[in-house]
Amino acid sequence: MLIPRRDVDFQLFEVLDCATLTRFERYAAYDREAFASVLDTAYRIAAERFAPYAAACDREEPRIEHGRAWTIPETRAALAAYNQASFTAATFDADDGGLQLPIAIAKACTAVFSSANVAFHSYAALTAGAADLLVSFGSDDQRRRFVRPMLAGRFTGTMCLSEPHAGSSLADIRCQARPDGDGHHRLTGTKMWISGGDHDLAETIVHLVLARLPGAPPGTRGISLFAVPRDRVREDASVGEPNDVRLAGLNHKMGWRGTTNAVLSFGERNACRAELVGEPHRGLEYMFRMMNAARIGVGTNAVALGYAAYGEALAYARQRPQGRLPGAKDPCSPPVEIFRHADVRRMLLAQKCWVEGGLALVLYCARLADEERCAADATARARIHALLELLTPVAKSWPSEYCLEANKLAIQVHGGYGYTRDFPVERLYRDNRLNHIHEGTHGIQGLDLLGRKVAMQDGVALNDLFARMTGTIASAGSVEPLAAHATALEAAVADIGMTTQALLRAMSLDPGVALANATTYLDSLGHIVVAWRWLAQALTAHAALAAARDGDRDFYTGKLAACRFFFRHELPRTGPALQLLRSLDDTALAIPDGGF
Amino acid sequence: MLIPRRDVDFQLFEVLDCATLTRFERYAAYDREAFASVLDTAYRIAAERFAPYAAACDREEPRIEHGRAWTIPETRAALAAYNQASFTAATFDADDGGLQLPIAIAKACTAVFSSANVAFHSYAALTAGAADLLVSFGSDDQRRRFVRPMLAGRFTGTMCLSEPHAGSSLADIRCQARPDGDGHHRLTGTKMWISGGDHDLAETIVHLVLARLPGAPPGTRGISLFAVPRDRVREDASVGEPNDVRLAGLNHKMGWRGTTNAVLSFGERNACRAELVGEPHRGLEYMFRMMNAARIGVGTNAVALGYAAYGEALAYARQRPQGRLPGAKDPCSPPVEIFRHADVRRMLLAQKCWVEGGLALVLYCARLADEERCAADATARARIHALLELLTPVAKSWPSEYCLEANKLAIQVHGGYGYTRDFPVERLYRDNRLNHIHEGTHGIQGLDLLGRKVAMQDGVALNDLFARMTGTIASAGSVEPLAAHATALEAAVADIGMTTQALLRAMSLDPGVALANATTYLDSLGHIVVAWRWLAQALTAHAALAAARDGDRDFYTGKLAACRFFFRHELPRTGPALQLLRSLDDTALAIPDGGF
Repeated sequence: MLIPRRDVDFQLFEVLDCATLTRFERYAAYDREAFASVLDTAYRIAAERFAPYAAACDREEPRIEHGRAWTIPETRAALAAYNQASFTAATFDADDGGLQLPIAIAKACTAVFSSANVAFHSYAALTAGAADLLVSFGSDDQRRRFVRPMLAGRFTGTMCLSEPHAGSSLADIRCQARPDGDGHHRLTGTKMWISGGDHDLAETIVHLVLARLPGAPPGTRGISLFAVPRDRVREDASVGEPNDVRLAGLNHKMGWRGTTNAVLSFGERNACRAELVGEPHRGLEYMFRMMNAARIGVGTNAVALGYAAYGEALAYARQRPQGRLPGAKDPCSPPVEIFRHADVRRMLLAQKCWVEGGLALVLYCARLADEERCAADATARARIHALLELLTPVAKSWPSEYCLEANKLAIQVHGGYGYTRDFPVERLYRDNRLNHIHEGTHGIQGLDLLGRKVAMQDGVALNDLFARMTGTIASAGSVEPLAAHATALEAAVADIGMTTQALLRAMSLDPGVALANATTYLDSLGHIVVAWRWLAQALTAHAALAAARDGDRDFYTGKLAACRFFFRHELPRTGPALQLLRSLDDTALAIPDGGF
Repeated sequence: MLIPRRDVDFQLFEVLDCATLTRFERYAAYDREAFASVLDTAYRIAAERFAPYAAACDREEPRIEHGRAWTIPETRAALAAYNQASFTAATFDADDGGLQLPIAIAKACTAVFSSANVAFHSYAALTAGAADLLVSFGSDDQRRRFVRPMLAGRFTGTMCLSEPHAGSSLADIRCQARPDGDGHHRLTGTKMWISGGDHDLAETIVHLVLARLPGAPPGTRGISLFAVPRDRVREDASVGEPNDVRLAGLNHKMGWRGTTNAVLSFGERNACRAELVGEPHRGLEYMFRMMNAARIGVGTNAVALGYAAYGEALAYARQRPQGRLPGAKDPCSPPVEIFRHADVRRMLLAQKCWVEGGLALVLYCARLADEERCAADATARARIHALLELLTPVAKSWPSEYCLEANKLAIQVHGGYGYTRDFPVERLYRDNRLNHIHEGTHGIQGLDLLGRKVAMQDGVALNDLFARMTGTIASAGSVEPLAAHATALEAAVADIGMTTQALLRAMSLDPGVALANATTYLDSLGHIVVAWRWLAQALTAHAALAAARDGDRDFYTGKLAACRFFFRHELPRTGPALQLLRSLDDTALAIPDGGF
């Protein structure tokens, strides 16, 4: 089920005030109505072209025939409609053929598409990410020959980082690129886990590949970035002969089956032409531009999958009669809808907290990305950039963890039916299990957050985050029904602030122990950030309630209830977690190897 | 991967001292070596006949042909070996053709079989449950014609409770049984979610069906129990003509695919002969005998699935090289096994805590069932029975929740590989998601625990549980490395005791509010009970450590580390949960229907 428009509008325009983005010169061509019209189009295409085939593309996995991966035909039709409306090009400059839409508006659209059919949408999302990287670091020639066709839907793009022996450890990649004397390079090696790595959906695929130049330093400092089209791309951007990129196999996944995931073999005939992107040895730095956006994209997909299942569970619960309420002992009385049972409502409310909290988080990050992009000066830009860097592992990981929990409960609301393939919730649960893994595992995100991000530039980003939270706490403190939440959040912020200092001190003594429970730190900061975004939503809802009309009254009251639920059921979990972190528990390190 | 024998031996013979069960007359024919020999046989058959086909029976789901469900042929071979060793008959009286084995020993064997292949094993486990019910309440004729062939592996059994419109709400079942004037009944109606409801594995299937007699009172008090063989069973227990039980369809599940799950239509030609079991209108009461054992069986399966995945994750982590330790900056140094990374060890230790804690819980319950069975007098028997009744929802639910979390982390340890169908962990994760649902959902277990069990007989069972915990706490308090855990458990017991009293007081005022978060109560009591079982394991391990030999030293040290991990990472979660319960949070009830 699609993410409801009412919540998207609430988050974008009431909480995040995105209509004011049009004050930035970059977005001056838009107004509130134009944003609405873009969202209308996204909802229409998602409903008509994406959602109806989500089950089919899971059932009929892509297959290899004649060395090529084939998807169900509706994939191509959906992406054609998507590209006809220029969604791949949504946030790109008009000069590059883009819509120059705010990132926040585009992010909401991607969430809607992913809630309809994450597998179809992945091809387009990866393409946008790869195009963005080429726009940032590629040559004019690469922009013309690669980016333009990608944004028009003629080509797709991928990111090729992992190799079979090296998933998380990019320092160990082995792919080689040797100058061919012709201004280009010859690439050899194998890449794995390449989403969208092959398919029948475009004229060709532009792979962005990490590889080493001859004599490159070892480790991550010797990695360069190359554009490697599956087929040669001529001067006029037309597609020529094959480029010696062989589809070596497809991975058969538990979920997300409609998106191919490939093993690619480059240069088996020594005829794989690769074009260096940017400068030598800066490949990882470039890739992280795409990666950071991709990580928020992962969080967005996790939200979308959780939200889609929540919608299903809610609809099911409203119409399924079963059982009676406590106290109604007459077995001849008609059964009630399960929506009336306290435990079902509790499960629905928990899902609501997680998926709407997750949406609030990723849209907040997208809004920050707009501010970064349009910042008045370098200082302001750097400050917002740092905050976004800090929030990236949180925006990737928190939804992966908690929106999967939402999927788990969506199955539970359906009872036995939810465990069958006749209902979409089991598929959504399988799909969402990927999000802890790709684009940097949950554990990697924890290390990134605690080992790098919180301490960078003397903690400027964390302080900025805390200052923003303190602002919301001050506002909520004077609103009677929210004052208790404000106090609770204030205490949680103090608690994690103190814990962070303790961990940073411990880091200088023994980084192994200080980082041993970094994942718990990640989860805890996520809970506190989402509590803050719930308080912001509640402030908006509370202010709007007085003048709200009928349907909206329940909507806003529901937001206040969900905020209360989050503060009662969720935020308190951070207490023991932070205490554990301060204890510097080393049990996992201390246990003997033979003790497992 | 099978549950390791070392842990099974530890739990059965060191912690639970099951060798002393042979002092009971019922088990006098056994000794410690005979138990070991039974376990040897279980491990051999599980390894040879069950484990190798777990992936195949998931891939090739049973299909319907000529009105019959067909499984992969290895299913039949596995069950033949199982029955040749009399495992279906393990706990039954020698007079009925059983092995008269202690329930604890048999339960350990079932855990091993389920860790090898839960789908194959389910057919046998359901048969044992149905046979037990017939032994308890059926006639001599039914024991002879049904039970004997079931225990010999000629027939299988099922339990038929749910109907398409009524899953959890048994008060609403509609199946009818009318006397046929011939001493039997004619049954009509449809049953759903029938595991093992049809297959090609036995001469016939004895369905135990809940149905209403003409003029029966409405609700659960008007339900009777019938034995309904798929094919008529003659006087000499030979199988005759079909009995008008039609396989109306199979459910296609997310996991657990090797076990058929059927929709059955009874009496479409008015020729379905049913035999009343026991007295009219007492069907639900009878069924609950099977159900209670089945619920502990669900918990056992959840443990087995979590444990199997933990074994896979551990083996993978020990051999997969990837990345370097914090501080090892030289990219030319060889990568370490991921087993060396703190976050991987943390995930493995969390899995260990959950699955070994879960095994400790279900085996403790099985040991209690032996004591109940062999109790010296009715008073002692009633007391143990009450404790077992209290622990049943916990033993069903806690492993369902936390051993599924173990499965989730087992995927995570494997990284991208874990998300593919090339590794077993994704299947085990899909399998384990069923356990919150069948034999009474998680929510139903919470209501059963808080709404019924804790208050029954003035709380005698809960007091008994607390007294047993206090005994362990006292023992551990004087053992230096465990004293802090003992103190923590003591505080948690006091906390939940106080919370229980508060909830029971609230129940008399407003049961709806008092029960609104019953699931949270269930999870919390589960955590406290499992902490207690960890403390008991740690006491045993600590005592054994001094005299332990090489391999065993690590084993016992691992137990102590896992206990410490549970007390640091897990038990503290109950603090906020119990505080929430005492606050009588009614947010899920108060939110307006339109607020979701």
